[in-house]
Amino acid sequence: MSQSLKNVHAMILAGGSGTRFWPLSRETWPKQMLQIVGEDTLLRQTIKRINGLVSPDHIWIVTTEDKAQDIKFHLEPLGSSAKEIRFIKEPIGRNTAPAIGLAAISLNLHFPESIMVVMPSDHAIPDRDEFLSNLKLAIQGAMKNNLVTFGIKPSRPETGYGYIKIENTSKMGVDGLCKVECFVEKPDLDTAKKYLSDGNYFWNSGIFVWKTSKILSEIQTHLPPLYKTLKEIESLLFDSGKLNKPDKLKKLKKQEKLNNLYFRLDPISIDYGIMERSQNVLMVPATFQWSDLGSWTALDEIIDKDEQGNILKGNMVDIGSHNSIVFSGQRLVATIGLRDMVVVDTPDATLVTSKERVQEVRKIVEILKQSGREEHLLHKTVERPWGNYTVLEKGQGYKIKRVVLNPGAKLSLQLHKKRSEHWVVVAGTARVTKEDETYLVHTNESTYIPIHTKHRLENLGAEPLQIIEVQNGDYVEEDDIERFSDDYDRI
Amino acid sequence: MSQSLKNVHAMILAGGSGTRFWPLSRETWPKQMLQIVGEDTLLRQTIKRINGLVSPDHIWIVTTEDKAQDIKFHLEPLGSSAKEIRFIKEPIGRNTAPAIGLAAISLNLHFPESIMVVMPSDHAIPDRDEFLSNLKLAIQGAMKNNLVTFGIKPSRPETGYGYIKIENTSKMGVDGLCKVECFVEKPDLDTAKKYLSDGNYFWNSGIFVWKTSKILSEIQTHLPPLYKTLKEIESLLFDSGKLNKPDKLKKLKKQEKLNNLYFRLDPISIDYGIMERSQNVLMVPATFQWSDLGSWTALDEIIDKDEQGNILKGNMVDIGSHNSIVFSGQRLVATIGLRDMVVVDTPDATLVTSKERVQEVRKIVEILKQSGREEHLLHKTVERPWGNYTVLEKGQGYKIKRVVLNPGAKLSLQLHKKRSEHWVVVAGTARVTKEDETYLVHTNESTYIPIHTKHRLENLGAEPLQIIEVQNGDYVEEDDIERFSDDYDRI
Repeated sequence: MSQSLKNVHAMILAGGSGTRFWPLSRETWPKQMLQIVGEDTLLRQTIKRINGLVSPDHIWIVTTEDKAQDIKFHLEPLGSSAKEIRFIKEPIGRNTAPAIGLAAISLNLHFPESIMVVMPSDHAIPDRDEFLSNLKLAIQGAMKNNLVTFGIKPSRPETGYGYIKIENTSKMGVDGLCKVECFVEKPDLDTAKKYLSDGNYFWNSGIFVWKTSKILSEIQTHLPPLYKTLKEIESLLFDSGKLNKPDKLKKLKKQEKLNNLYFRLDPISIDYGIMERSQNVLMVPATFQWSDLGSWTALDEIIDKDEQGNILKGNMVDIGSHNSIVFSGQRLVATIGLRDMVVVDTPDATLVTSKERVQEVRKIVEILKQSGREEHLLHKTVERPWGNYTVLEKGQGYKIKRVVLNPGAKLSLQLHKKRSEHWVVVAGTARVTKEDETYLVHTNESTYIPIHTKHRLENLGAEPLQIIEVQNGDYVEEDDIERFSDDYDRI
Repeated sequence: MSQSLKNVHAMILAGGSGTRFWPLSRETWPKQMLQIVGEDTLLRQTIKRINGLVSPDHIWIVTTEDKAQDIKFHLEPLGSSAKEIRFIKEPIGRNTAPAIGLAAISLNLHFPESIMVVMPSDHAIPDRDEFLSNLKLAIQGAMKNNLVTFGIKPSRPETGYGYIKIENTSKMGVDGLCKVECFVEKPDLDTAKKYLSDGNYFWNSGIFVWKTSKILSEIQTHLPPLYKTLKEIESLLFDSGKLNKPDKLKKLKKQEKLNNLYFRLDPISIDYGIMERSQNVLMVPATFQWSDLGSWTALDEIIDKDEQGNILKGNMVDIGSHNSIVFSGQRLVATIGLRDMVVVDTPDATLVTSKERVQEVRKIVEILKQSGREEHLLHKTVERPWGNYTVLEKGQGYKIKRVVLNPGAKLSLQLHKKRSEHWVVVAGTARVTKEDETYLVHTNESTYIPIHTKHRLENLGAEPLQIIEVQNGDYVEEDDIERFSDDYDRI
C-alpha cells in the first residue's frame, strides 16, 4: 500500500464562484475561503484532511487564473507546506470535465504513473480519519483501473441531488467497494422517498479517485473533442517545459494559444460527461459525515441547532424564532418570530430569505452583476497578503480606508496619478518612503502623500500597523496604481 | 368664530421615546422626527397642519427636558416661525395626564381664557383641510365647556385600540358633535367585529380640544393628587416669572423643586384619568384619513402597496415577496420569498420580524437598553444644529468621524482632555482656530489639533464643509468636551 500511496496526487477543485453563500461569499472570496463550519476555512480544512495521506508537494489546486493569486495568499496560514502546493490554472471556468482533463494532462506530463484524488474544496467532512480510511479503499479500487466515486448514504428524501444506484449490495466489487449500476437524475419527492428506503441509492459526493492514465483514456472514449483539445494543450505545455531560458514573448504566445483552446471548450460536468457513461465505476459507501454546503440551509445538516431549531451566530438578538438561520457579523441583527427563514448580514449587504427559496440567492447575485454593482464581487474588508483594508466610506472626491499592515509587511513602492493620500497612524509605527526620503510616523501622527509621488508603507514593528487613509481626488479607484517594486510579484 | 380662534393654542405632545419604529427611530431620534409618510417629518407636518389655524406663537411643544434641544434644532427648517414656537418641558415623561396638566397650568398662567388643542406629534393625517374643518367643530364644542375628542370610524376589527362609544348617532350633541356614552377597553376579535358593524363605536385618536380652565377643573375632580401637585408647580412658575433679574441660583433651586414634584407623579394617561370618567365628553366623527403609526405594520394603512401587497423602499432587491414591508437605506438589502414580514435596515442595526409580532420590537429595545448597548439610543449619523456627524468606525484608541458643517455654521470653541484630532478636509474650506491662531484649510489639506488645545471649526463658504476627523486617545467619547463659546447655547 505505501508503495501505491507514493503515486497519489490530490487535485483540489477550487474554482467556485461564490454565489450560493452570498452575501458571505463573493466572487473574489468564494465559499471555499469561508470558515462556515469547523476550525478553519473549507479549503484549508480540505488540504489538512488530505495532507494526512499525501505530502504537500503532491497537492494541487485547480482553479481559474483570476482566483489563483487570492487562493495562494489564502493558503499562507498553512505555513511552509503552503509553498509546496502547486497550482493548475484554468484560463476560465468550464465546469469539472475540462478542469479535471487539464489537471490530468498536466499531471501526466511529469507523473504518468500517478493516481488522482479529485476533491471539491468547499465540502464539509468533519471526520478526517474516517475519510482517509475510506480513501484508501478507493485508491485500491483505482489501482485496478476503475473510476472510483464516493457515495453518501441518504439521510432524507433529498430532491436536490443526483443519485448513484449500486448493484445489489451483496455483490461487492473489490474489497468493500460497490459496483455502480447507473447514475440517476434528481428525483421528485416520491421517487426520492423510494430511493431512501431502497438502500441501493446513494448521493453523489463529487469526490473521485482514478489513475491519471485511466481518466485520460475515458475522456478519449466518451469526450473525444475534449481529448483532442487536451492533447493540443499537452504539446503546448511540453514545449514550454523545454524552453531553457524562459523566453517571455514565446511564453506569452503559448499562453494565448492555450487560452484560445480552453475558451472554446464546452462546459460539461465530469458526472455527465464521464461517470454516467463509463462501464468501470465503483463506489465507496462513505462512512464519514458529509455536506456539500450547497446552500445556506445545508447548515441544518452539519451545525448543531438550539432547542428551537435555530442556528444563530454573531451580534444578534432574537425573540421567539424557530427553525431559522441567522448569521450576523459585527452589526446588530434583531429578529422576532421568524419561521424557516435565513438572515445573513455583512457590512455592506443583508440577505433575508425563506428557507424554501434559498437557492434563488443565485438570482440575486445575477441581478447585482447585471446592474453593475459591487456587492456580489468584493467584501468591504479585502484580505491581502500584507494584511487587509476596509473601505470605510466612499464619497464625492474622496475615499476613506482603514489599512492594516502585518508585522514585517510592506506595500509595493507605488504612485497614484489621480489622487493624493493622507495617512493617520492609529496603531503601531509606520516607516514611510516618499520619493528619496524615508521617515517614521508614530501613532497619532500623520503624513501626506501628494499626487504623482512614489511612496511605500512598511511595518517594521512586532504588532499590526493600522492607518486611516483619506484619499482625495476625482478618481479614487483601486486601479489607479503604478507599482515599481513589490514583495508579492504584482508588478 | 375668528374671535374664538384668537384664544386657541395648540399643545403638541412630543415626548415619544422612539421604540415602536426602531431601528429607524432611536431614543434620541423618536418617531415624530422621522419622515415615514408624507413630504416632511411627522412633527413638522403636525406643526404645518395646525399652523393653518393657529399662529406659531400659539403653538407649544410639550416634551421632556432631554429631548427639547434636539427638537428645537429639528424645527429649524420651518424657518422664522420655528423661533416663535414655545416649549413646555417635563423633567421626565409621566404619560399624558401629567404632561397635559403641566401644559394647562403653564398656559393658564398667561392665557386664562385659552382653548387647548392637544395633538400627538407622530400621527399621520394626510388631509389638512379636512382636519382643520373638523377641528373648528371641536373648538365650538369646547367653547361650550365640553371635553371634545376626535373619533375615527373603524375600517377593520382592530383589537389594538380602545374604542369610544357614542350615544345613538341620531342624538347629535352640538353642531355635528356626538355625545360620548363611554370609553371601552381594547376588545377581542369577535367584539371588535361587533363594534365595526354597530356603527356607534369609534377609535380614539388622541386629539383633544377643551378650555384650559375646563381641563384643570376636570383634573381637580378626577385626579386630585395631580391637581395638588400642579398647583404647587403653578406657584413655582409664578414666582419664577416675578424674578426681575434672573437669579441663577434661585432659578436652579426652583427647577430642582419642580423636578422633585414632577418625579413623584403617577404616570397615567389622560384617557384613563379623565376622559373615561368625565360626564362632559363630545366626539367629532373625524372625516379625515388617520393613522397613529403605532407600529411598522401601520404603514399598510397609509402607504400605497405594490401589486404583491409589498411596501419596498431604499436600496433593495426583491424576488417574489408578498405582503411585506422592507425599509432599507444606503446598504443593500436582498429579500427572497418573504410572506407577511417586516425588514428595516439602518447603518448599525437591522430588524427582521414577522408582521404579527411587530409589537415586540419594544422588547428588543428593552433588551438593548438592559445590556448597555447603544443601538436603541443613537443613530450612526447624529444630526446637530450645525450639520451632522457620522461615526465611521471606532476602534481601540481611535474614532473616525465624517463631520458635515452647514454653510455659515461654526462649532463651539472647545478642547478635549483625552484626545487629539486629525482633520482632513474632503469638501469645502475650513476656517480653523487653534489657540490664538486662525487659518484656512482647503480641500485635500489637513491639520492637527493636539490634546488640551482650544480649537474651533467654521465653514465660511456657501457649500457644506466636509471633514474626516481621526480622533486619537485612550478615551474617545462625546463627553470629553469643554466648551468656551457656542452659537447654540450649549456651554
